[in-house]
This record gives sequence, structure tokens and C-alpha cells, in this order.
Amino acid sequence: MTGSDVPAEGTERGPELTATPRNKGVDAAVAAARRVVASLLHAGDGSAAEMEKIADQLNAIADHLDEHAPAVEERLVDMWRGEGVTRHDPVTGPENAIAPPLQLHGKEDGSIGGVVVLGLPYQGPPGFVHGGVSALLLDHTLGVANHWAGTSGVTGTLTLRYHRPTPLFEPLTVTGRQVSVDGRKINTVGSITAGGKLCVSADGLFIVKDLPRPR
Amino acid sequence: MTGSDVPAEGTERGPELTATPRNKGVDAAVAAARRVVASLLHAGDGSAAEMEKIADQLNAIADHLDEHAPAVEERLVDMWRGEGVTRHDPVTGPENAIAPPLQLHGKEDGSIGGVVVLGLPYQGPPGFVHGGVSALLLDHTLGVANHWAGTSGVTGTLTLRYHRPTPLFEPLTVTGRQVSVDGRKINTVGSITAGGKLCVSADGLFIVKDLPRPR
Repeated sequence: MTGSDVPAEGTERGPELTATPRNKGVDAAVAAARRVVASLLHAGDGSAAEMEKIADQLNAIADHLDEHAPAVEERLVDMWRGEGVTRHDPVTGPENAIAPPLQLHGKEDGSIGGVVVLGLPYQGPPGFVHGGVSALLLDHTLGVANHWAGTSGVTGTLTLRYHRPTPLFEPLTVTGRQVSVDGRKINTVGSITAGGKLCVSADGLFIVKDLPRPR
Repeated sequence: MTGSDVPAEGTERGPELTATPRNKGVDAAVAAARRVVASLLHAGDGSAAEMEKIADQLNAIADHLDEHAPAVEERLVDMWRGEGVTRHDPVTGPENAIAPPLQLHGKEDGSIGGVVVLGLPYQGPPGFVHGGVSALLLDHTLGVANHWAGTSGVTGTLTLRYHRPTPLFEPLTVTGRQVSVDGRKINTVGSITAGGKLCVSADGLFIVKDLPRPR
């Protein structure tokens, strides 16, 4: 892939394939939790902030939430209800503070893509994105690309190639595209680029499979 | 790998290769933030908890932390000071609420390993660990295995094979072992097992490289 193959970042937006964060309810609380995660990491142990007091406040919030939470089994049924996009996964989920979250859009050429900026919580080498975080984003994106193409499966084999370090704090374009379906085998590829340059490419073999949902 | 090759979970603990969480300071606040992340996901949008109020509380904590935080450049220098283990990465870092955190131990046979239980924030298929999260854990573990073996590098190619679904809420044994060093090329393997059964295996090609540290 050369720079000229990479569409300008943020353009060619098609249908939303992932959940749109709402600025209210649990999404707003999760967005704030995401801020806390990053701010704690930015602050570090040398911070003048009173960490014991912050720990107490956060534990009190978790206690309060746990008092009102449904049983895990019940929650799992709710999470997987309906045919829409998931709101809880660790890549695109607005209800999951681990997720950046990445928002993905379908394109007319059959591929999908999205743009995301990653901060300190996703760091691997000094100042760059963790290779395993790139793998997490790409595994998920390839799965969504299969869904967009119409034939989904579970990951059988995933191969990641690291071409150059992936920068933190810069817009990253994450793309995926289903290449072929042969019986139960699906081949899907994807990439992460920054400023038009290829950072990571992924090649996945997926196996068509219906997953039982909790109920 | 057969079940009999897998050591009993939690046994054979050697030297700690990753940071030990401290029950004070930023580590305690991050442990509490980790609870908040999981509790928000457990609660979901159907919860009777007042999410707007929780969002306000969390944003206030983030604001307070940001007021006391050093500049990012300064913090990066601090993060990478010294030769010890990192405390900030998204897999083992006690200062990073995204990290479960996984703790890894060196073994006399040259391999490394650790045991971790993953909850809802790490979910992929219903009730199981996200394939990309397994990739994240293994990429990091292979890197630590290289460090333990004495020759480190950056990830060139990483291949993940998914043998069976990896369960949430159960102890997972994560292992890594450097297989060979040939010039600048390092071959390293790893696996995730649950109850003695192989869930995911990883095969990595790393390239020997000195990474510049922020200063």
C-alpha cells in the first residue's frame, strides 16, 4: 500500500457500523471514566493530587453502581439483545471505558474504516501505540468488516505485521475489508495508517460460526 | 501442547518480571478506577443509578487530576526512567486502569508465565474473552519473555491462532518463551490456557532494536 491508496482521513464516511456514543446516561459516565483513566496515568505517583482521597471517591462510586447493577447473567442477556451493534465491547463500545472508542463506517467499495486518536493508556514503546493494542483494534475491525460484507465468523488465525511505529496523539485511520469467502473460511485484511503511511497490517482467517447468545 | 504440559495454575512462581501493584498512592486510585470501569459496564443503561450525577463526579475527579498533572513530555520522561519494569503499560501496569493487570514471573526453564482472571470489560463473543484482548496479552507477554531471556526487540510479525473460546471469569494461564535468536531476529512463542486446555497460541518474530527513551 502506498500513500496515494489511503483516503484522506475522516472522508468517505458511509453508514455507521458501530455504536454512536450518546452524551447522556451510562455513555456520559463512561466517557468521564475514560477521562479518569487517562488523567490518573498522566498524573502518576509524583502528582500532588491526594490519591488516597481519589481512591475513596472512586470506590464509593463503584459500590453505588454495584448496588444498583443487575446479576451478570441478566446483564449478559441484555447486552446481546437485538440485532444492532454492540455497545459494550473493548474497541467500539460507548459503555466500555477501555474502548477508545473507535467508530467504524461502511464504504461503498465494501470496505470499512474509522479514525481514532490514542492517548497514554494505549502506549507500548515510548510515545507509540502498544503493538497489542493495534492487534486489538484490527481484530475487531476485521470482524466488523465481515459483518458489513454479509458473512461473519470467529477468528481462526490473525497475523499482524508491524511496518513502522504507530504514533500516539495523532489521527490513525483503521480500515478493514473482506477479501474472500470459501465455504466456511473467510479471508479479511486490514490496516492502521498514520498520515498516509502504513503502520500495521493484518490478515485474518475467520471461520463461519453461529455463536449462541445468552438468554 | 497437551493438558499434561501445562503447569498447575499459579504454581512455579519465579522472580516477578512485572510491577507489583501497591495498595496506596496512584495504584490504589487506579485499582478503584478499574472497579468503576467494570461496574459501569455491569450496570448498563437500565441501571437505576443516577448516571448524570456519576458523570459529574468522575469529570470532577479528572479535572482535579489534570490540574495537578505534569506536562505530557515531562511525564513521559518519568515513565521511562530507570531500568526496572514499566508501571504504565496497558497489560501489566498498576498505574493503567486498562491493564487487568497481568503479573508475570520468570521460571528456571527460561519461560515466563502468569495467571489472570478477565471480567466483562474484556468480552468479545458472548461470555468469552475478545480475541484482540488475547492478542494484546500475548504480544506483551512475548516481549517480557524476550526481556527475561536477555535479548529484546520490537514486534515484527505476530501470529495468533485461536483454538477454542477463552472464558471470562476463570483463571487464565498466560505463558511466553523465547525460542531462538538468529542475528537480529528473535523467535518467541506463547499461549493462553484455561483449565489446562489451550485457547490461544502466539508466534512472534521480533527484531532487535534499541528504542530511544524520552528525556
